Amino acid sequence: MTAKPALVETPPVTRDMQGPVMRLTLSNPPANALSIATMEAMMEALKDARNDEAVRVIVIAAAGKVFSAGHDLKEMTLHRADEDRGRAFFEKTMRLCAEMMQMIVTHPKPVIAEIDGLATAAGCQLVASCDLAVCTDTSSFATPGVNIGLFCSTPMVALSRNVHRKQAMEMLLTGEQIDASTAKEFGLVNRIVPKEYLNQVVQKYAEVIASKSPLTLKTGKEAFYRQAEMSLSDAYDYCANVMVENMMFRDAEEGIGAFLQKRKPEWKGE
Amino acid sequence: MTAKPALVETPPVTRDMQGPVMRLTLSNPPANALSIATMEAMMEALKDARNDEAVRVIVIAAAGKVFSAGHDLKEMTLHRADEDRGRAFFEKTMRLCAEMMQMIVTHPKPVIAEIDGLATAAGCQLVASCDLAVCTDTSSFATPGVNIGLFCSTPMVALSRNVHRKQAMEMLLTGEQIDASTAKEFGLVNRIVPKEYLNQVVQKYAEVIASKSPLTLKTGKEAFYRQAEMSLSDAYDYCANVMVENMMFRDAEEGIGAFLQKRKPEWKGE
Amino acid sequence: MTAKPALVETPPVTRDMQGPVMRLTLSNPPANALSIATMEAMMEALKDARNDEAVRVIVIAAAGKVFSAGHDLKEMTLHRADEDRGRAFFEKTMRLCAEMMQMIVTHPKPVIAEIDGLATAAGCQLVASCDLAVCTDTSSFATPGVNIGLFCSTPMVALSRNVHRKQAMEMLLTGEQIDASTAKEFGLVNRIVPKEYLNQVVQKYAEVIASKSPLTLKTGKEAFYRQAEMSLSDAYDYCANVMVENMMFRDAEEGIGAFLQKRKPEWKGE
Repeated sequence: MTAKPALVETPPVTRDMQGPVMRLTLSNPPANALSIATMEAMMEALKDARNDEAVRVIVIAAAGKVFSAGHDLKEMTLHRADEDRGRAFFEKTMRLCAEMMQMIVTHPKPVIAEIDGLATAAGCQLVASCDLAVCTDTSSFATPGVNIGLFCSTPMVALSRNVHRKQAMEMLLTGEQIDASTAKEFGLVNRIVPKEYLNQVVQKYAEVIASKSPLTLKTGKEAFYRQAEMSLSDAYDYCANVMVENMMFRDAEEGIGAFLQKRKPEWKGE
Repeated sequence: MTAKPALVETPPVTRDMQGPVMRLTLSNPPANALSIATMEAMMEALKDARNDEAVRVIVIAAAGKVFSAGHDLKEMTLHRADEDRGRAFFEKTMRLCAEMMQMIVTHPKPVIAEIDGLATAAGCQLVASCDLAVCTDTSSFATPGVNIGLFCSTPMVALSRNVHRKQAMEMLLTGEQIDASTAKEFGLVNRIVPKEYLNQVVQKYAEVIASKSPLTLKTGKEAFYRQAEMSLSDAYDYCANVMVENMMFRDAEEGIGAFLQKRKPEWKGE
Repeated sequence: MTAKPALVETPPVTRDMQGPVMRLTLSNPPANALSIATMEAMMEALKDARNDEAVRVIVIAAAGKVFSAGHDLKEMTLHRADEDRGRAFFEKTMRLCAEMMQMIVTHPKPVIAEIDGLATAAGCQLVASCDLAVCTDTSSFATPGVNIGLFCSTPMVALSRNVHRKQAMEMLLTGEQIDASTAKEFGLVNRIVPKEYLNQVVQKYAEVIASKSPLTLKTGKEAFYRQAEMSLSDAYDYCANVMVENMMFRDAEEGIGAFLQKRKPEWKGE
């Protein structure tokens, strides 16, 4: 008589290093819902990656046929039975979600979304929050909250900072899916690749970025999102200063020297 | 001897309910100029639609071959004879125009522009101010004020919030028309349809949106335009709160419940 | 024995009037680097063009196969030997660069970039800073500072106000070139033309704009960039006022009159 093997519980977000690239995989298929546990695991991983010098670039991927269907509606519905009809739980969910998304934007390392399948609601927001996104040609994207009486109001914060207003509004008001090619036209994803090449392309793409000076990447990424919220003249004052400081980095001296001498630079990260 | 039949005066904006969709038709062809009378009629109709529960979605369309050629240049020119050379009248025109356009943006119901033909100057602004826009493949768009010495400065407020800067600048500085396909690429319209299907497609499109919870639509639309003017972190603080309140609506409880139970939701509008 | 003819030193930016169009040509090939001397010459030319009534439109072009490769890395590297390791020089460079770019944006005359070849780093920023851009089908664009340890932080100020965020981020993080067609899709250039027609097309394009009232162009261009940084309601308050003032110009009276009388307007510039 053989006992069934005990199931080892898969953590909701698995971590995997491939060279200088940390892959964080949503591992709760089929929906890869952004439950509290998943969001906390993602934030923990992002936090650990901040100061880990081995991590140069982060890829956020997903197991199964759906990238992520957004928040966990069952989890949320269970809390309707709470004394406060769930309000405290919903607040916690929305606060965590907003924190996680902003943690990607303010993260010192570039973050790439790797999408194969459907990304909806907060799942679509996750794509929009990453610096870059690569998807398969059969992927699709939606903010369908309006279909269930819950407008995708936090997803639209990220979405409307990626695509034009009427395009965002169409997704938000109709709840309909857009395909990969439309997502690329809109500016929600950078590249579309056939499914069989997805991993390799994203890994290569990440490695190209990982070959740059990490200090330079950190400096530039932070400045990018900060200047985006400034007036033109404030943005120039701020970025001119960032660029002067960047020129004083050893890595800029090395990079420019290597370029003029036609050799490969060696980054010191300082 | 037969008398000509007395002409019944057509109001400048006609109203017509098609199911849950209110069609407002600019009915002063051939130019459908946005005269004072037309703007006041449009604002009156928009105001009435605010609290009319039967109206779920608004479509702004036009009679004839031109969607709208913008302000009424003859009306404005007549006022050059005023003691103040027309200044007070021009102020009234611009104030009314800005109010009307913002009334669309702040309207609790989604507003769709249905364009068949040329939309220029304030007519193009009207398209840009709507949440969504559908046009025929023979439609075109322009901000040609520069050709008559009057830069399309108020139209550009709406236009530049729809399309990229260089694209808006090209329309504004050259005054040239763009065709439907360019308008879609730019993000000024959402969909292009053959003329013979225009009404049906827009009606269907509007009905899809009209089938959602009106309270959810109102909440989401308002939040969309408000968060668009905020910093990322303010937008998240604000929208997380909007989303928690939205979760407490009966319509979200109903919508999520119906989704989990695989049945159609019944909105209560609360 | 014949002596080689003495080389007449070419100024770094040459000026050339073609009808109402002033062509400013970066004339320091092959890189057309934006050295201090080049930036100062460009600013001097832009300043002179401000009040020169003969100049209606400005075209910024370049000699040779590269539009501009950005800052002069050799010049900057020489200053590493300064007592302050170059800081003062880098500050001067960045300040001048930011001033030059903003001088284009705030210039009362429309400025068109004419690109044939590669535009990188501050060269790409120069393209992004112009009101309009026309390029050949073999042109390309990049912000490759990240490859040399120096993130394109000031170029991104202009770039990110032209194209969507993920598209800008891809250029900034990978340092890779985009081709002309991608640049047009992104919104970085307005038109693509075959090399043999570049000059003619740009000249024609500039002349179309030069045929408008210069006062109207100045008024509209200034308002465009100012309103772009305002909230919707502030933008409408401001632009409604701009439009009323514009209506009081003689050129608006003339332009509207000419339009209604179906004749060509004659601008007075007042």
